[in-house]
This record gives sequence, structure tokens and C-alpha cells, in this order.
Amino acid sequence: MIGIFDSGIGGLTVVRSLMKQLPDYDIIYFGDTARTPYGSKSPETVVGYALENTQFLLKQGAKIVVMACNTASSVASDSVAENFDIPIFEVISPASVKAVKSSRNLIVGIIGTRATVKSGIYEKKIRAMKPEAKVYSVACPLLVPLVEEGWLKKPETVMIIKKYLHPLKVSQIDTLILGCTHYPLLIDKIQRKIGKRVTVIDSSIALAENVKDFLDTHPEVDNLLGKKGEFKLFVSDVTEQFEKTAEATLKRKVLLEHIKL
Amino acid sequence: MIGIFDSGIGGLTVVRSLMKQLPDYDIIYFGDTARTPYGSKSPETVVGYALENTQFLLKQGAKIVVMACNTASSVASDSVAENFDIPIFEVISPASVKAVKSSRNLIVGIIGTRATVKSGIYEKKIRAMKPEAKVYSVACPLLVPLVEEGWLKKPETVMIIKKYLHPLKVSQIDTLILGCTHYPLLIDKIQRKIGKRVTVIDSSIALAENVKDFLDTHPEVDNLLGKKGEFKLFVSDVTEQFEKTAEATLKRKVLLEHIKL
Repeated sequence: MIGIFDSGIGGLTVVRSLMKQLPDYDIIYFGDTARTPYGSKSPETVVGYALENTQFLLKQGAKIVVMACNTASSVASDSVAENFDIPIFEVISPASVKAVKSSRNLIVGIIGTRATVKSGIYEKKIRAMKPEAKVYSVACPLLVPLVEEGWLKKPETVMIIKKYLHPLKVSQIDTLILGCTHYPLLIDKIQRKIGKRVTVIDSSIALAENVKDFLDTHPEVDNLLGKKGEFKLFVSDVTEQFEKTAEATLKRKVLLEHIKL
Repeated sequence: MIGIFDSGIGGLTVVRSLMKQLPDYDIIYFGDTARTPYGSKSPETVVGYALENTQFLLKQGAKIVVMACNTASSVASDSVAENFDIPIFEVISPASVKAVKSSRNLIVGIIGTRATVKSGIYEKKIRAMKPEAKVYSVACPLLVPLVEEGWLKKPETVMIIKKYLHPLKVSQIDTLILGCTHYPLLIDKIQRKIGKRVTVIDSSIALAENVKDFLDTHPEVDNLLGKKGEFKLFVSDVTEQFEKTAEATLKRKVLLEHIKL
């Protein structure tokens, strides 16, 4: 199975993208809803959570693990890769590669959680490829709760997006990375506020493409993965709200299985 | 020592009130910042957290425990009281008593987290005293992240407050309980939007008064408590943002000690 984890249910945007790219592959998802959100917590705490989540997915039979959470990818992907001997995918590199390819003037904007922005990881990845690139980051900590509340179209949400994007507009970015798996649910509003001329990179799509490319070129790993279109969804806490948002993201009925880590 | 816990640092409004009511008393505070927030999580999960937090405070020498969190008080106060043999204080009863006393027409509004509102605990407490009371509750899940971001005076925050309070205004409440320890930091905006004629009850002040009344009438417990004005602040996760908000709430420098539960 392909194992995927996220701090909550935002990572289901990655599942949605994976189901498009690899429709028959068996997927097991773990959303750490009992400890969500990660984006405002310290790197040490998030590393501990990421190791526990990966361990859980391996026990459930995952043969590759996808970190569908920008915060965890930012601060914990090295630790996870060191501790487990299977292919680990993180969301930062694929989005960075895509941004560099698409950018004309190499002025790139990033929006993400406080932890992701503070890690500086997108800047590092992009500058490693293009040292001359200018990268501007803005932490948007209120967008996750707004998405989780389902306030996707409210005027307050649009005002807050406008406020967050203002410095990036002033910096004349031509490419914007959505550095949090919750943000694709706001992509229309974000595109409208940043302007039509800016290419918006959905990190969840970039990650799914990256996984597909890897499996296409690594049949020895691909052969380990089941392809019966099975989907299992585990969460560390169950609430009605999580269920609703999960169904809205995947556009199908879901059954949340509760587990305690 | 007086032990206090909260899901994060919102409960420091209770510390602030306690320091006013009982200036010399030694206080130990635990903010569960690694698992914050509680308000969107299930009752079972919050009960587990509340028991662990209480255990920690007892180990540190607490002789009474104050649950400075409306969500934990709503769903976990019975379990905590059953499992530990010391005086336990919760925030719901004192605020309910105060609301009933202050209300003229017995039409009372409550704002709180989703978990607090869903528990129906304020309605139960108020109707147990005044069966004829009309109680209207509104969940305001975005106010906690707005407070934690320090967006106390932004126009977006004011718009969101107005939207949340609208149904309570229509119901012609004359008393409004701030059923979350984060909300006192927004009391000016809330008072302006609900109107001058509505009495706003700060649950953190009601709780602190309740603790003081109890100690005044129970010298055998009061004698167990240190009175050197000591204050210890433990958190399960340390970030700059938590430190900033803690200092803004208490209006003094604080040192966050990190512990792992």
C-alpha cells in the first residue's frame, strides 16, 4: 500500500491528486487529528509526531510513505528518511522543482504555516537549483482554521487572503507555491487575489506527480504495491467536522477509523 | 500550590484573574501546547488529555486543580473529579451562577468552542437553577486562532465577531457568557458588537472568584497552599508565538519550561 500521513485532513488533497494519477493503487491515510495542527508547533515536537505516524503506516503494511504535510516535510523529512528503510516522499522538493521550471523572472512566492516558513526550506531548495532566484515567504496561519471551518467562500476569508498576499504582490512574484496541503481548497480565491499573471503551484499535485514518476521508473517498488483501488482512512480523533471536511475534499463518502497512537 | 491547566495559553487569563484575587499564592500552570487546541476534538480525546494534565500537576505538588479550559471543563470535569481526591474547579458553574444572577429577562447567550457548545453543559447548569431560562449558544471556532495570532484589533476579527454574535442579538439576550478562556482578550470588541445593554460575563474572572470564595471558607485546604507569589509555567511545546502571547496576556516576562507528557 501507499502510506500517507498529514497533521489532519488537509493532506487529503494529496490523496485526491494521487487517485487521479494512480487510480487503482491501494492507499492508506493517517490524519493526526488528535494533535492537529502541526504548523504552529516546534520542530522537535513535529519530528516526534512524524516518526510515530510513519511507524504506524509501516505496521499497517505501507511500502512507501508520503508526507502529505508541508510542516512535517519541512522539519522532519531527514529524520524520517534516516529512521526508516523505505522510499519516503516529501512535498517540498517537487513543488520547488515545478516552481523553478515555471518561473520566468525567478521571483517566487511561498505561502505556508508559520513552521514551514520559519524553516526556510523552500528558499534552500530553490536557491540550490537557482542561486540567483529571489524567494519571498509569508506565513498564513489563519488559512488552515478557515479551511477546516469550511469558510471557503466567505468575504472574511477573501479579506484575510488579500492581506497575506499583499507583500508578495508588491515583490512582483511570477510564481506562487501553495506550501500547505490545505490551501488548494482556496486556490480560486488565491489566484484571483494574486492576479492572473502569477502561476500558482499546488504542492499536492506536484507531490502526486513525483510519486507517479518514481513508480514509473522503479518497477521493483511498484511491484510491492497493491492495485485494487482500496482506500483506508485512519485518524487519531474522530469528530463530525473532520468527517464533513474529508468528504468535501474527496467528494465521496468516507469512513474514519479511529486509532490511538 | 494551585495547579492550573489549559489546552494552551488561553487559560493564562485565569492566572491573571487569580493573581488579582489571590496575589501571593503560588501557582503552577500547564499549557498543553503540543496538543492544542481541544475545542475541535472529541470528548474521549479531551478526557484523556485532562486526566494526564491533572496527574502532571499533582506530581508537581498541586493541592487543588483549576481547569482553566471551557472545553475540558465541559466534557472532562466529572472524570477528573472521580479520579483524583483533591478539590477540582471547573469554569462552567461559576460563570453560569454569575449569569443567572445578572440576567434580568433570563435570556442568556453563550459563545464557546465547538466542543463546549455541543456538550450543552451551560444550558444544563443554567436550567438546573432556572428552568424557565432561555439559553442560546453559538460555536465560534475561529476566535481561538485569531487570538493566538494576536489579531485582536483587526477589521477581519471584528467582522467575524459580528457574524458569530448576530443570532444572539436577534434572540435579544441580556447576558452573554464568554465560554472560552481566550475570549476575554476580545472583550472590548465583543461588548461593542453585542451592545452596551448586554452584560458580558468573563468566565475566567468568575472562576477566579469561585476559587477565592472556596479558600476563604476552607482554611484546611488554604493552609496547604504556598503563599510566596511563585509562578511556574510549563508547556508541552515551546514556540516564540506561545511565548509572545503568554507575555501579552500576563503583561510580564515569562519563562516557558518544556515538559513531555
